[in-house]
Amino acid sequence: MVDFERRVIELRRHFHKYPELSNREKKTSGKVASVLTSLGITVRKGIGGYGVVGLLEGTKPGKTVAIRADMDALPITEKNDVPYRSCHDGVMHACGHDAHMAAVLGSAILLKDRQSVLNGNVKFIFQPAEEKPPGGAIRMIDEGVLNDPSVDAVFGIHGASDVNSGEIVILSGPMMAGSDNFTVGIMGSGGHGARPEQADDTILIASHFVVTLQNILNRKFSKEEQPVISIGKIEGGNSHNIIPKMVTLKGTVRYFSTDNKKIPGEVRSILNSLTSMFGGEFDLTYSKGYPVTFNNPELSELVRNTAAGIKEIVKVGESIERAYVSDDFGYYSQELPSCYMLFGSRSKEKGFVYPHHTDRFDLDDGFLPVVSRLLMESVLHYLQ
Amino acid sequence: MVDFERRVIELRRHFHKYPELSNREKKTSGKVASVLTSLGITVRKGIGGYGVVGLLEGTKPGKTVAIRADMDALPITEKNDVPYRSCHDGVMHACGHDAHMAAVLGSAILLKDRQSVLNGNVKFIFQPAEEKPPGGAIRMIDEGVLNDPSVDAVFGIHGASDVNSGEIVILSGPMMAGSDNFTVGIMGSGGHGARPEQADDTILIASHFVVTLQNILNRKFSKEEQPVISIGKIEGGNSHNIIPKMVTLKGTVRYFSTDNKKIPGEVRSILNSLTSMFGGEFDLTYSKGYPVTFNNPELSELVRNTAAGIKEIVKVGESIERAYVSDDFGYYSQELPSCYMLFGSRSKEKGFVYPHHTDRFDLDDGFLPVVSRLLMESVLHYLQ
Amino acid sequence: MVDFERRVIELRRHFHKYPELSNREKKTSGKVASVLTSLGITVRKGIGGYGVVGLLEGTKPGKTVAIRADMDALPITEKNDVPYRSCHDGVMHACGHDAHMAAVLGSAILLKDRQSVLNGNVKFIFQPAEEKPPGGAIRMIDEGVLNDPSVDAVFGIHGASDVNSGEIVILSGPMMAGSDNFTVGIMGSGGHGARPEQADDTILIASHFVVTLQNILNRKFSKEEQPVISIGKIEGGNSHNIIPKMVTLKGTVRYFSTDNKKIPGEVRSILNSLTSMFGGEFDLTYSKGYPVTFNNPELSELVRNTAAGIKEIVKVGESIERAYVSDDFGYYSQELPSCYMLFGSRSKEKGFVYPHHTDRFDLDDGFLPVVSRLLMESVLHYLQ
Amino acid sequence: MVDFERRVIELRRHFHKYPELSNREKKTSGKVASVLTSLGITVRKGIGGYGVVGLLEGTKPGKTVAIRADMDALPITEKNDVPYRSCHDGVMHACGHDAHMAAVLGSAILLKDRQSVLNGNVKFIFQPAEEKPPGGAIRMIDEGVLNDPSVDAVFGIHGASDVNSGEIVILSGPMMAGSDNFTVGIMGSGGHGARPEQADDTILIASHFVVTLQNILNRKFSKEEQPVISIGKIEGGNSHNIIPKMVTLKGTVRYFSTDNKKIPGEVRSILNSLTSMFGGEFDLTYSKGYPVTFNNPELSELVRNTAAGIKEIVKVGESIERAYVSDDFGYYSQELPSCYMLFGSRSKEKGFVYPHHTDRFDLDDGFLPVVSRLLMESVLHYLQ
Repeated sequence: MVDFERRVIELRRHFHKYPELSNREKKTSGKVASVLTSLGITVRKGIGGYGVVGLLEGTKPGKTVAIRADMDALPITEKNDVPYRSCHDGVMHACGHDAHMAAVLGSAILLKDRQSVLNGNVKFIFQPAEEKPPGGAIRMIDEGVLNDPSVDAVFGIHGASDVNSGEIVILSGPMMAGSDNFTVGIMGSGGHGARPEQADDTILIASHFVVTLQNILNRKFSKEEQPVISIGKIEGGNSHNIIPKMVTLKGTVRYFSTDNKKIPGEVRSILNSLTSMFGGEFDLTYSKGYPVTFNNPELSELVRNTAAGIKEIVKVGESIERAYVSDDFGYYSQELPSCYMLFGSRSKEKGFVYPHHTDRFDLDDGFLPVVSRLLMESVLHYLQ
Repeated sequence: MVDFERRVIELRRHFHKYPELSNREKKTSGKVASVLTSLGITVRKGIGGYGVVGLLEGTKPGKTVAIRADMDALPITEKNDVPYRSCHDGVMHACGHDAHMAAVLGSAILLKDRQSVLNGNVKFIFQPAEEKPPGGAIRMIDEGVLNDPSVDAVFGIHGASDVNSGEIVILSGPMMAGSDNFTVGIMGSGGHGARPEQADDTILIASHFVVTLQNILNRKFSKEEQPVISIGKIEGGNSHNIIPKMVTLKGTVRYFSTDNKKIPGEVRSILNSLTSMFGGEFDLTYSKGYPVTFNNPELSELVRNTAAGIKEIVKVGESIERAYVSDDFGYYSQELPSCYMLFGSRSKEKGFVYPHHTDRFDLDDGFLPVVSRLLMESVLHYLQ
Repeated sequence: MVDFERRVIELRRHFHKYPELSNREKKTSGKVASVLTSLGITVRKGIGGYGVVGLLEGTKPGKTVAIRADMDALPITEKNDVPYRSCHDGVMHACGHDAHMAAVLGSAILLKDRQSVLNGNVKFIFQPAEEKPPGGAIRMIDEGVLNDPSVDAVFGIHGASDVNSGEIVILSGPMMAGSDNFTVGIMGSGGHGARPEQADDTILIASHFVVTLQNILNRKFSKEEQPVISIGKIEGGNSHNIIPKMVTLKGTVRYFSTDNKKIPGEVRSILNSLTSMFGGEFDLTYSKGYPVTFNNPELSELVRNTAAGIKEIVKVGESIERAYVSDDFGYYSQELPSCYMLFGSRSKEKGFVYPHHTDRFDLDDGFLPVVSRLLMESVLHYLQ
Repeated sequence: MVDFERRVIELRRHFHKYPELSNREKKTSGKVASVLTSLGITVRKGIGGYGVVGLLEGTKPGKTVAIRADMDALPITEKNDVPYRSCHDGVMHACGHDAHMAAVLGSAILLKDRQSVLNGNVKFIFQPAEEKPPGGAIRMIDEGVLNDPSVDAVFGIHGASDVNSGEIVILSGPMMAGSDNFTVGIMGSGGHGARPEQADDTILIASHFVVTLQNILNRKFSKEEQPVISIGKIEGGNSHNIIPKMVTLKGTVRYFSTDNKKIPGEVRSILNSLTSMFGGEFDLTYSKGYPVTFNNPELSELVRNTAAGIKEIVKVGESIERAYVSDDFGYYSQELPSCYMLFGSRSKEKGFVYPHHTDRFDLDDGFLPVVSRLLMESVLHYLQ
């Protein structure tokens, strides 16, 4: 077991030293593929870009379960002074995808050892570009990663920097938000501020848009379906006295309801009505982001029970607040019963207290071999 | 008369060739002073910066009337191809102050000739920095230009680029707007757009400010006192999903009511209330600009009647729309009975059709000697 | 002269004792007609209901000038204890139309005496239903009261309860507002307040309407054309928790611009846009009221000069604030050069200090014979 | 068992025939007390008005569990033509409290039979005035109904008219909303609509209140804590042109968060700010209603499992939508671990398809004996 643990940790630190940006995971995916191949697992490469898929077929027929890891790093210059510090200036595994890959490869090692008792198959999905919408998940799904053999359930893992190492958290239902963005341009004739009747007052239209948007949310959506929308940017004009020809707004939409199709229509309807009332025109670009990540309750219960049986796991939580960030794991969870497992990566003693996406982020990789075991045992339970 | 006309036009073209920016009217004021001195008019220099005052004392006691001209040019590169084109790159008499000086000096020549029949005195005020608030007028007034002897009435002239040369327009009552500016900063804690409850939504506060501002106007001011307020700039935030820590707005206020003291208080009251409701703080900088220019009805009637008696003046108007631009002549009109006369400067045949403050602006200086005569005769009528 | 004065006052008090409501001025108009007939003036009755027209033809050809008086009283129970107290319970000349009739009949007496020197004709118009829109003026105009012979100018008079008896006020330009009313119904599905997403929130739509209406005014109209709009009634719903199926709003529009055609369209546009955004439907009833009363400047000058020549008139004003109330005299002023003269009716010594339309209103009828003379002399000046 | 069933149904029909309004449950509580006494259960009367408490002490020491039923009827005239039709005109058990009492008395019968094996005690709480806030629950709690011996857990039951008879639904967490009401008066000087600058525009203030209220919700509360607020009534003014001195609004607040203390403060803050901006004053009456009914997850799981073991229960649901109505059972659930069980009362064949609080409401009382058994067995499980 000591060897296994060392190997998982070495893999994580290797990936950490050589991070690659989204859609450029050439060496990372090569390394993943070679590890899988060395284990005797069938590998296919180049799915959805640098995506890699390993297939471990059990000796007995059964279902197929997939385990997904993401591979890309972020454009951040690491500030940690550690032996495994990033060697690529300006690129850093600051979201812990290095750990995800190592733990999933660890589970491959463990499951390979149990191939003879496997009732069904395990597919290992290593995915590019989680950080860069539209993301690698949708491309790999489009290129058939869930078929042949067709997958019945999907597992994924993500570190939680505010949960202590040694703990596992498994939520049920919608557990990471769906997330869209939009950009609005409000265009009008412009004019002198002393003569507003000769101009379309683009700033007033933009202001009514911001105010009305919140009113629509509360009235058109049930409390359960209601998304959170915020405007993050507003900009128009240069001087005190000239009504500008254009105001630009940017906003974000977060939601936990599986059906969010109404939102862009409502945004458009407000803009239509305001420009019809006040004059001017508008341009709306609404970009769908990742959908809601939905944890199947039964699958979550199974994983929770599995975790409870592993003594190295000191606590199994189920009630932390769901997250308003989003992950392209959501695409799998929209297709199939899925469970996204959160593992604690925080360690105050070791100084791993910084949040994801910062240049001081680090995690307790000593817990990763346990995560590998949780994945392995969850797969075995599921395939029973 | 031909000599007089040539002299006025030469003066105008001289000033046009050698424009100087606001508060830098060194050579211009020197030239003005030397012309006045050469006429035998007592001159004081260095009032309110480069301000020049000439005093012509009549032989009989009476009232004192002032005639004001402004001297500064604009930071514009002239595009006209004329013999008197600006010799100072990037500086241009694009607001016609060259013509104002020439016509007023012309009136000095004519009045000097009539000194023996003058019942009272004439003060010639040549003022710096009309284009640059707080402006030369307020400084010259503060330094006593209206005293010693104390002035009873003030005349001023301004070209009108949309009125044909040969025509004079004399409005009654408020004829140029008072104009203030303000800048608002709305500051809050900022935060993630998915978690608005943890942030002060500065963009929403700014939007309510824009909407409410117009509501206050209609409700707190009578139709007569109500100013026009427009927001010309709004800016805050950079990304779709981060609620910014600050939004900046800039706005302009135009009014024709003599008492506009309520406005800054109302703006502040809205901001106070909105930040009290929504959170956050604000910063308001309210800059008073030039006050309303108010034409005294009796004085306007006198000038109108005088103009009607001058055969070179083809039309005397009184009903064009009052202007939303402002002029620091307003300061004189707040102190004393005043009349700001508009003279037509447009000539389609000569190609003088461009508006003020553009690089193609030019004016028909053939009309200036007539304007000098209008000033002279108005002064004589007034002092009778 | 003493007899003439007594006669005018007796007429006023007679009318005061026997007031009649709008469109029921049967006896009043009969009395008017009999007085005119007794003077030898040709009378036509039954124009626009109980309208009466008297025509006094001069002996020399010339223009035709009309003098208009209104005849109807108000549904108010008089509280004054005077000998000429209203004999009709619940009906009272609380707007002074009794005085208008008496003064105009007085002018008929005076003008009849001067028939031999009249250069033209005088038409005496006694009009029903000024207090009840659409009013008697428009009906009498439609039935030809301004034709045959066609009228060139119209005079009218109205008491001013805040101006002292003995004073005359003649404004120029727009001097009484145009006035429209509107009623809006906002209809929606209704529903439980806990489930707003299943209802159209009619109260929210109504609230946005009120807020947006003021924003439109400031932006779509120049300061000069901008009407004053206020909502005087809002009503919808009964309980805390049921979103009502309907909210009703009533509002008033006042304007001094002759062209107010844009207003109903803007109101409709707001309602269209809001129901398109928020759901629901609306119903708009926009009722045009009396137009702006516009005093022709030349005619006003003529009357002002005439008044200045009458020694019993202690003051001729021209600068009190224009009124936001409206009068169907506006219809005449939209057709022809008109002058609506205001005469002081207040007398602190006599206790005549109550405003129009109250049950304590009374006026100093001792001044009415002078008003008759002002009308007579103005007519003579005009017809010269 | 047949006798037991008949007895429960007879009890229900007896209560149904003789309904009594809130706080007038004299005979009803007398009947309840006599049934309990006849069973040999110790009874205390007159707690919180007509409240009745029965205490059944087990032979072995243990915890104490309470079962609560409500006793009051509604001011509705029954329209059903059934043998047990209400004998009291204008009063009707249209919310099924008759059934609640019968089923709980049924559970008392069953538990009395098992007294010898009871590890602990059972308290039967029959409560007045559930339909009339502040409700009987809070009064009984204040008068000590949960003490002596102190209660460890509370069970309650409520019929569900949209769930078929034979089914049981047990939700977890917040399952009925907290509900408050408020009334706002906005007072100002009033005035003529043509002169808004002389008045406080109460209707505009009310409109801004409605608009801003929804904006505050979205910004000041997390999605989870955010209440639903709707305005159900707005009223002010009578005529088109008079700005009223007062506008009244009534609204409802529904929430599922246990801490709703922020809400009245936020409502007050908006009103404070708006009157500070626009003028006028306000009056806010905020009435706390029943709190959230929160089902303890462990207790709910226990009841769900118990129900699953009773073969007459055809289905055990856990996922119908939580309700936005509120119940004063919420007070117990705020104090102690509680479970409010919903039993299906609908039967299409028998014509029991009308919703609660209507004059055609009826329910399938054949299922009540099973509900009694569910209560009995849940108690036994809990006390084990």
